[in-house]
Amino acid sequence: MRFLHTADWHIGKRLYNYGLEEEQEDAFRQILALAKQEKVDAIVLAGDIYDRALPNEQAVAMVNQMLQQVNLTAHFPLLAISGNHDSAIRLETGSPWFKATDFYLHTQLEQAFTPIELNDTQFFLLPYFEPFAARQYFKDDKLRTIAQAMPQVVAAMQAKFAPNKKHVLVAHFFAAGSQQSDSETKVTVGGLDAVPTDALAAFDYVALGHLHNETALHTARIKYSGSPLKFSVSEAQVQKGVWIVDTEPFHTEFLPLTPLRDVTEVTASFTELIDPNYYTKLDRNNFIAINLTDTKVIPNVMQELRQIYPYILSLTRENGREVTAVTAKKIRNLSPLTLLADFFKETTTQPLTAKQEKLAATALKIAEKDGD
Amino acid sequence: MRFLHTADWHIGKRLYNYGLEEEQEDAFRQILALAKQEKVDAIVLAGDIYDRALPNEQAVAMVNQMLQQVNLTAHFPLLAISGNHDSAIRLETGSPWFKATDFYLHTQLEQAFTPIELNDTQFFLLPYFEPFAARQYFKDDKLRTIAQAMPQVVAAMQAKFAPNKKHVLVAHFFAAGSQQSDSETKVTVGGLDAVPTDALAAFDYVALGHLHNETALHTARIKYSGSPLKFSVSEAQVQKGVWIVDTEPFHTEFLPLTPLRDVTEVTASFTELIDPNYYTKLDRNNFIAINLTDTKVIPNVMQELRQIYPYILSLTRENGREVTAVTAKKIRNLSPLTLLADFFKETTTQPLTAKQEKLAATALKIAEKDGD
Repeated sequence: MRFLHTADWHIGKRLYNYGLEEEQEDAFRQILALAKQEKVDAIVLAGDIYDRALPNEQAVAMVNQMLQQVNLTAHFPLLAISGNHDSAIRLETGSPWFKATDFYLHTQLEQAFTPIELNDTQFFLLPYFEPFAARQYFKDDKLRTIAQAMPQVVAAMQAKFAPNKKHVLVAHFFAAGSQQSDSETKVTVGGLDAVPTDALAAFDYVALGHLHNETALHTARIKYSGSPLKFSVSEAQVQKGVWIVDTEPFHTEFLPLTPLRDVTEVTASFTELIDPNYYTKLDRNNFIAINLTDTKVIPNVMQELRQIYPYILSLTRENGREVTAVTAKKIRNLSPLTLLADFFKETTTQPLTAKQEKLAATALKIAEKDGD
Repeated sequence: MRFLHTADWHIGKRLYNYGLEEEQEDAFRQILALAKQEKVDAIVLAGDIYDRALPNEQAVAMVNQMLQQVNLTAHFPLLAISGNHDSAIRLETGSPWFKATDFYLHTQLEQAFTPIELNDTQFFLLPYFEPFAARQYFKDDKLRTIAQAMPQVVAAMQAKFAPNKKHVLVAHFFAAGSQQSDSETKVTVGGLDAVPTDALAAFDYVALGHLHNETALHTARIKYSGSPLKFSVSEAQVQKGVWIVDTEPFHTEFLPLTPLRDVTEVTASFTELIDPNYYTKLDRNNFIAINLTDTKVIPNVMQELRQIYPYILSLTRENGREVTAVTAKKIRNLSPLTLLADFFKETTTQPLTAKQEKLAATALKIAEKDGD
């Protein structure tokens, strides 16, 4: 059995203010091409297909197209689960019909215990679940975290193990030892606390979703595929890709994806940044996070830089901003409205309109009253 | 060929402040039972499956269950289209897989011209469409309304007519001669202007959705099924049901649905309404629109009536409300905030909380300023 392991597509996600539709479609085409090139027997998609529980129509249309292409056009069996970003209920629409063409989409905990047999392998598709679902399913009120639930989840799966088959777990959670990046949910909320990798030793392979970097775990048989795209500046240095997994003999290989528009970081002075000798050496079609080394105020800095770099993600100051005693005193004497207007202009390059200024004044008045 | 014709399920709809989940599920069970009892060969669902483009998760789960029961459990072929209340894009999720079990769900105009053949009949499933879609499809910029587009739509279908087959159109629009009730979209917007029934003469039967009363048209072969439930007080007197249609020999029969909780209207005085001799003769589990004959102010009228009638939809005054010269003068002298507080208390039976009063005062202050 040879399969492709991917996850965390997050269709509908935006990178700062930029839509990622073209990038998502390009990455998808690469994944499909790799599946064909590697002649895999199935594609595993380990959750967070959508970026949000309530995706917009464009995202819905895109996912519908992608799943159709994988399963109905290219005829790949597809093994998928819902992640914490998906709405299990919305995602499961149509799933009872999908099975007929070997598209298995599990969105409820109880479905995880019916293995899907393909060739020499039993796949256990464990969707993202909340601890309360485990408490209900196992009738055990002590299960307060995913980590606490996993021994019982694995035991229930082991009870279904066919001895002559390989056993693959597809799951979406935070496994111990992983390093988180900025583009996952930052807070380790209820269900997202770490599952120790020991708890997963029963499986020949564990195909994980949730963390966006494949480097998050360094284990031979328990792996994150990571997201197909870089979803934050903290991922600028990460190589994105998919795993190709062979069950017999066991073998894994990470195949890279080439971003249509990469996420990069530059650290330079304003003078350098606007110098053709500097910027013609960069791929300015990339998304760029600029780290400015200047400390002085630069008028219209964003407007100036955007004319050269069309996809600026963020502008930070490597060395902070110079504030002289005079400036500080001056700032302290400005009214909140003037400060807001200055900040607005600096950030958006546009002054407040008369209407915006009126609104801001009213809001500040209310805020001041609330402070009383 | 014998089929059941229903439409306008509007899953997720609320009647005033009341959820209709139980009523929807009960009506669905009756429809499915009628399909079995009448041994139909297919079920036709002529649009507005959902009440809104963005249904909540509960509505999604309910529709998923219903479609699964009809097609996968009871094995009825299902012929469905999207209506103006559905999101075509969201609704079509899964549809490429549905065909394998004779569930045909058309959401795009171009799909209407590929007939679905079942037994002796060709079904043309025409989803609700906007005039711009017709302009694009027919490359004819003169098509500004559905009515203008229909001759070309019908001609394109007739080009696909198999001569030895019956021809049934499933569609969702306002056909001429129909009488609208309150629970449809009230405004005759762009695409909803009337299609003359002559334009539909080519078909052996036209299964329509959009208007909620089957009495909206009185033609032998062009019919609205109406909604399975009463969705407004104006439908209080309407019998809800489904059509059973035989193609050969042609025959139609309207089979009634019995509401779990009916929508009724009563006109009476307050004294009557709170008299056990009066109200014990009514089914007080019904939704009730009360038309009060009194003209005097009745303190806490809603609170009093709700103790007897748990499902009051509305309270109107048959003869208006008595306003003496003194009262009128008194009212004119009250502050907007006092008037709002009185109205709030009369409507909700609760006084404004301190927080609500503060909010209201702020809002009124802003409103007054805006009026300047």
